[in-house]
Amino acid sequence: MDFHDVPRLPRGFRCAGRHCGLKATDLDLAVFVSDVPARAAALFTLNHFPGAPVVVGRERIRTGILQALVVNAKVSNVATGAEGVEDARLMGRIAAQELGLQEELVLMSSTGVIGRRLPMDKIRSGLQGISKELAADPWPAARGIMTTDTEPKVLSIGVGEATLTAVGKGAGMIAPNLATMLVFLFTDAELEAGTLQARLVRAASGSFQCLSVDTDTSTSDSVVLMANGLAGSVALDPFQEALDAMCRRMAEWIARDGEGATKLIRVLVEGAASDEEARRVSRSVVDSPLVKTMAFGADPNVGRVLMAVGKCFDCRIVPERVSAHIQGVEVIRGGVRAPFEDSDVRALLQRDLIEIRISLGVGDGRGLALGCDLTEGYIRENAAYASS
Amino acid sequence: MDFHDVPRLPRGFRCAGRHCGLKATDLDLAVFVSDVPARAAALFTLNHFPGAPVVVGRERIRTGILQALVVNAKVSNVATGAEGVEDARLMGRIAAQELGLQEELVLMSSTGVIGRRLPMDKIRSGLQGISKELAADPWPAARGIMTTDTEPKVLSIGVGEATLTAVGKGAGMIAPNLATMLVFLFTDAELEAGTLQARLVRAASGSFQCLSVDTDTSTSDSVVLMANGLAGSVALDPFQEALDAMCRRMAEWIARDGEGATKLIRVLVEGAASDEEARRVSRSVVDSPLVKTMAFGADPNVGRVLMAVGKCFDCRIVPERVSAHIQGVEVIRGGVRAPFEDSDVRALLQRDLIEIRISLGVGDGRGLALGCDLTEGYIRENAAYASS
Repeated sequence: MDFHDVPRLPRGFRCAGRHCGLKATDLDLAVFVSDVPARAAALFTLNHFPGAPVVVGRERIRTGILQALVVNAKVSNVATGAEGVEDARLMGRIAAQELGLQEELVLMSSTGVIGRRLPMDKIRSGLQGISKELAADPWPAARGIMTTDTEPKVLSIGVGEATLTAVGKGAGMIAPNLATMLVFLFTDAELEAGTLQARLVRAASGSFQCLSVDTDTSTSDSVVLMANGLAGSVALDPFQEALDAMCRRMAEWIARDGEGATKLIRVLVEGAASDEEARRVSRSVVDSPLVKTMAFGADPNVGRVLMAVGKCFDCRIVPERVSAHIQGVEVIRGGVRAPFEDSDVRALLQRDLIEIRISLGVGDGRGLALGCDLTEGYIRENAAYASS
Repeated sequence: MDFHDVPRLPRGFRCAGRHCGLKATDLDLAVFVSDVPARAAALFTLNHFPGAPVVVGRERIRTGILQALVVNAKVSNVATGAEGVEDARLMGRIAAQELGLQEELVLMSSTGVIGRRLPMDKIRSGLQGISKELAADPWPAARGIMTTDTEPKVLSIGVGEATLTAVGKGAGMIAPNLATMLVFLFTDAELEAGTLQARLVRAASGSFQCLSVDTDTSTSDSVVLMANGLAGSVALDPFQEALDAMCRRMAEWIARDGEGATKLIRVLVEGAASDEEARRVSRSVVDSPLVKTMAFGADPNVGRVLMAVGKCFDCRIVPERVSAHIQGVEVIRGGVRAPFEDSDVRALLQRDLIEIRISLGVGDGRGLALGCDLTEGYIRENAAYASS
């Protein structure tokens, strides 16, 4: 898969990013719009306390048609009750008026602190005149949706005559169901809305659903895919392939840029009793604070991997069949430490990609988990987030 | 419950701690012995990869009789295969010879790095002559079992004519099933071995089973209770009460002294659909890295509590019935932020005990979880543990 060196929006999509005063100085507001109504699909958090924009978003996505997204950072509009839902609707209405669109074609998204009302005056003045700034450059909008990310995230790729582009943000409060903060996907390919949803579910299952920065599932997680059809129809298989690769790449980028993270951790479990058990074991390993700090410290304390496998109480684990590789080096064989040199593994753990492969030897189940190391940076960012 | 100001061993128990060269300079070896064979009960980790001493310990506890414990720190003798089991047996045999006891009456326990063989020469020379140092002072032995604890942990309490004493260590890799590193309980009360096991299970269910420092379940967790009967029989109810209080106090001490921890976090969930669901929700909150860093930073980011409740996907959560108190202040009412002053909660979060009470309003289920905050200290201790 060849991602573009300079990512761009697909034809017929434009966007803008602005500073409206939610953050001290950085961009904190973004609008994405298609020239024509687009088929749309979306996945939202399964947290029992979804944010107000998620509540409204679930209604709006039912038609399978969207034309614009309006997103703010810093305040997530979660745990704000009926007023919060009204705020979310109002934010969409203001954007729709500014863009000259029907209100129902606008999806809202908010990310940031939970339990605060959206300052609607700032949102309103921030959106005023933004339609004049709409452009093909994705970066200002990508900056506008960031919270604790260290960099904006945009990827694009060609699929036949069409382009597929993702704009994402992540950083913290990220675990499966759904695992990501916000990822918006745009394509000018022509696709049915029904097809779109199934394709998005499939792509997410091998990417965002495998992603865990800190085991905490956000109340705002949303993945939205819009297809405006301006490039005509594309073959479905290459499109799915591009979508899978795009979601995987974005998920890995989000993990790598997890709060305080310095390394991406990829855990592949094979030979489990089922795919479900393989996923549970892979998550147990990627989520283990002791495995995460081992990765950070490049310390070949490989027993922690065994511990994390062993604490999957409900999974079929036969100790003497378990083997594990770290960075390609066999560290566990038959449930006990394999003969390897600590110094070899220590050197390989210096890399910024940590690959852990575990074989359980009891079946055909496979599962992947993506995560990151745990560092002092995570603590610093999260010990004073509300007030910063 | 009145714990003794100066904790002591019950009559007929003596112990000793030594430095045998596993740690650089600190004590790293301990022996506990009863003058007469004692009724004994034990709980061990449910991790699929139990350490060799746990494997042997499970056999030995079947008789319900023990007379001595021999414990080392720094090397846990886990993932060491059949040789590791032989090492554990040999360690018990050396101790038995030194103490003049039958081998089967000695229980071994090891804590520390996983995947390394026990240096048996050091253990052997460390145990030589230790019987001459046995004394009623519990502190050297309590020091000898420490790994990353910042202080030795001994508690004692009177039960009628008898005494109940606990010597524990904790710090990291601590989560339920079983949650603690090592806790050894001694009493001179006369109790049946069968009774003992049931009483220990009950006391653990309200203490060690509620304890999670970092969600990682150790491969060495063991709780052992020995009753030598030298003080005669005691009433069972006061004994259980003392045992419950003792285990709870020790669990809270272990949480408070969790790796890098500065605060104890106590989460009580009420009104859940079942006790099991209440426990799951309370653990989700106490384990959430974002709740833990909120506690560390004394930052009233109370939406994180809601997030952690909301990510219990399989539990019955009706958002509008959920309320939450932090340090006695209502922060969530009916699933949304309650009216409270951030500055009030911020001030209360400075305390070293954080109490979070959550009511789900859907049933009678209750559950407790004990944990600690997450700080840079945890990262520092765990990023280079194997090599330090």
